[in-house]
Amino acid sequence: MKNFLSIHDVEDLNNLITGGIIAKRNPFADQLLGKNKTIGLLFFNSSLRTRLSTQKAAQNLGLNVMMMNVGQDSWGLELEEGVVMNGDKAEHVKEAAAVIGRYCDIIAIRSFAELKDREKDYAEHIFQQFKKYSGRPVVNLESATRHPLQSLADCITIEEFRTKQRPKVVLTWLPHFKPLPQAVANSFCEWMNHMDVELVVTHPEGYDLAPEFVGKAQVIYDQKKALEGADFVYGKNWSSYQHYGQVLTQDYSWMIDEAKMALTDNGKFMHCLPVRRNMKVADEILDGHRSLVIDQAANREWSAQAVLKEILVGQLEE
Amino acid sequence: MKNFLSIHDVEDLNNLITGGIIAKRNPFADQLLGKNKTIGLLFFNSSLRTRLSTQKAAQNLGLNVMMMNVGQDSWGLELEEGVVMNGDKAEHVKEAAAVIGRYCDIIAIRSFAELKDREKDYAEHIFQQFKKYSGRPVVNLESATRHPLQSLADCITIEEFRTKQRPKVVLTWLPHFKPLPQAVANSFCEWMNHMDVELVVTHPEGYDLAPEFVGKAQVIYDQKKALEGADFVYGKNWSSYQHYGQVLTQDYSWMIDEAKMALTDNGKFMHCLPVRRNMKVADEILDGHRSLVIDQAANREWSAQAVLKEILVGQLEE
Amino acid sequence: MKNFLSIHDVEDLNNLITGGIIAKRNPFADQLLGKNKTIGLLFFNSSLRTRLSTQKAAQNLGLNVMMMNVGQDSWGLELEEGVVMNGDKAEHVKEAAAVIGRYCDIIAIRSFAELKDREKDYAEHIFQQFKKYSGRPVVNLESATRHPLQSLADCITIEEFRTKQRPKVVLTWLPHFKPLPQAVANSFCEWMNHMDVELVVTHPEGYDLAPEFVGKAQVIYDQKKALEGADFVYGKNWSSYQHYGQVLTQDYSWMIDEAKMALTDNGKFMHCLPVRRNMKVADEILDGHRSLVIDQAANREWSAQAVLKEILVGQLEE
Repeated sequence: MKNFLSIHDVEDLNNLITGGIIAKRNPFADQLLGKNKTIGLLFFNSSLRTRLSTQKAAQNLGLNVMMMNVGQDSWGLELEEGVVMNGDKAEHVKEAAAVIGRYCDIIAIRSFAELKDREKDYAEHIFQQFKKYSGRPVVNLESATRHPLQSLADCITIEEFRTKQRPKVVLTWLPHFKPLPQAVANSFCEWMNHMDVELVVTHPEGYDLAPEFVGKAQVIYDQKKALEGADFVYGKNWSSYQHYGQVLTQDYSWMIDEAKMALTDNGKFMHCLPVRRNMKVADEILDGHRSLVIDQAANREWSAQAVLKEILVGQLEE
Repeated sequence: MKNFLSIHDVEDLNNLITGGIIAKRNPFADQLLGKNKTIGLLFFNSSLRTRLSTQKAAQNLGLNVMMMNVGQDSWGLELEEGVVMNGDKAEHVKEAAAVIGRYCDIIAIRSFAELKDREKDYAEHIFQQFKKYSGRPVVNLESATRHPLQSLADCITIEEFRTKQRPKVVLTWLPHFKPLPQAVANSFCEWMNHMDVELVVTHPEGYDLAPEFVGKAQVIYDQKKALEGADFVYGKNWSSYQHYGQVLTQDYSWMIDEAKMALTDNGKFMHCLPVRRNMKVADEILDGHRSLVIDQAANREWSAQAVLKEILVGQLEE
Repeated sequence: MKNFLSIHDVEDLNNLITGGIIAKRNPFADQLLGKNKTIGLLFFNSSLRTRLSTQKAAQNLGLNVMMMNVGQDSWGLELEEGVVMNGDKAEHVKEAAAVIGRYCDIIAIRSFAELKDREKDYAEHIFQQFKKYSGRPVVNLESATRHPLQSLADCITIEEFRTKQRPKVVLTWLPHFKPLPQAVANSFCEWMNHMDVELVVTHPEGYDLAPEFVGKAQVIYDQKKALEGADFVYGKNWSSYQHYGQVLTQDYSWMIDEAKMALTDNGKFMHCLPVRRNMKVADEILDGHRSLVIDQAANREWSAQAVLKEILVGQLEE
């Protein structure tokens, strides 16, 4: 693997999922692979699971980790080409990426959508520029449009907990008062489209995701109907893609509780976390037998380890 | 040792003190004990000594360290049960603790008193919830009511510098214009109550500590009388416990200087640091032969190492 | 080497430059030198290159790294002697330095000029006090008056790219709207004065650097004249030393572009980064064949490694 920006960088999804499950069974088997190599983790936004699980996975592989909160440890980066830099950005990404590429063997980046300019967000400038100018493999720790390490952890979790050859997986929108990015929902659809599952997406009207992410999923605007017979219910809030970044409704009747889950086929509940209890999901679900949210989070370590291992192996082969 | 939240988690205090002294003589003897294990250090508040000394101790034991400034690297945590999370807290401690417990073998936490609600502070919710939901040993890096790693370092220091079988130890309140927690004073009393010392506590009226911490110590409101014949004078400011969190007086005549120390039996001065010079203690004391403050701080490394070693040994035995 | 605060701490400049070049060829040859030793990196100011390159160099040498953002992870330090500490600084540098010295084998510090009080800035109190009270070697990660790890990286870069025995090196002031410290410019002059080069400094009137840094360099106020026949053009903005900390002019005609570089003898362009494009230097230079800025930044790793190695070897000999 050269980079890990989206599923399009994955050569063999089954191999990668298996890689995660193997890493979980024997976390320290590849400890020499990362020896004398360094991964830089750059955070333009806050993080808990991603920060800790990626750091842990890197250490399992023997990598040194250098962590930076951009804009807090250092300063903001200019992303536009050709501008006169007389504003508040002290450094251009061209220099930053090239320099960090000289210190790090792998560069992992978190940079969320700003939800102001759809075209700009969806162009993923910062990831493209780090890929172009750093000369190093770039790993996506959640970008404006995708969160592939989460999606891979979700695939591993579904693989571990499925009881049918072809389970029904329902992605459902959840209510929130703040506008959140579409990244996790986009990415989940994109990965599920490569899995042997029946994928259904449900949300209020106006919340349709971009068609390139929805793919062959069935879209049903009636949440209860969508949930019928589901094996996995994946909850997530996102703001509107059409009316970009807007909160069109805060309809709290979309919250997931036991009455809703009773419509499923003994369904499991999934969420990428953090989750706001009793606004998006009821306590009874998160504290009960249906919840897979901690398993998903735990699998973040193994998804990161599988990805970093493939990148390190790729570097050996160069 | 399973957890280290207070002296009540200590099985044998003498063993633990000896453990610290042994670690100091041979810091790297147990480097294999922590191999392939990870400690997470979570800071809800600022730290200098605790951050560096705990990190150092963990590295001496071969542990990987993952550090997080909660609320700065990530976001605030909700501690209440059953609430609708529609405010500024994006994640519940139930999830955060469980998830961090999947990435870390030991979790160490600093979370100070807020000094607004005594019952809430003294319930130590966050530590109890991490203990309950993380499934991992929890170490106290200073909580609302206690600072046991500091107290253990203080015990080691007194053990190293005492010239009598049963020294007289005086905890004296010092003036400050800001309301500070009672944690260090509470914890010092609690630990001294388990040591073979004559313990005296002195402070202005209204500053009595909670009875469960004062224990069998003698309380004297006349500072000069209290200091007579002391072997160790431990200075610390704290806000009122009865009038919770209030600064009842800033009486600067409580500052420790050479005239005060002349009342002691060649007494040594101790303080947990940071200390405000010439407001709480005179330069002449901190820069003179009586001060043990740097020795105390240096012993923080060995107190942390002794505790982490006992926890790691406990995990081996499981 | 005992400390690394300025070139005056360097015993043999050629050896140190060679040390950097050797480290670059074989980064992990001295990995046992730092085993069980710890370097503390203290940042009073933001950092990108210095943070990452110094951490990387330390890891190459097998050192443990403890990183602290002072005032963010912890609190502000009082630097004045004898004051009553009843303001916003909770800890005196005397204690902080002594304590950190007990946890760390080497202490590296970044603390910029405040540009308010020239005498105070140029006294470098914090470095002097860490040197005095920590009992450990102190490394300058950029102080009020100097940035010697940058200057050493610059020397290595000039050594690698020079085509003449005695190249002409021109330090040119660049325009900026904000007042910046003189540290990089001072330090560059100081080091170039020890190299076998023809050193010219050019800037608008009123921007003369302190005479002890200018040394034997020729000062020319006409930028174009100064650039004639240059082999290396080193760009940097700084605020006035005479009218301390002031921006006397923002004359954008001082920007470096291809027309200016055409005056040189096939000259290379150098800058310590971060650099504001099209305000200080034109894109055509930074993106073209003349630019050495990424090479300079990459050499920061090797300059730090050469310095840390000399300090570690010095500790072995004690």
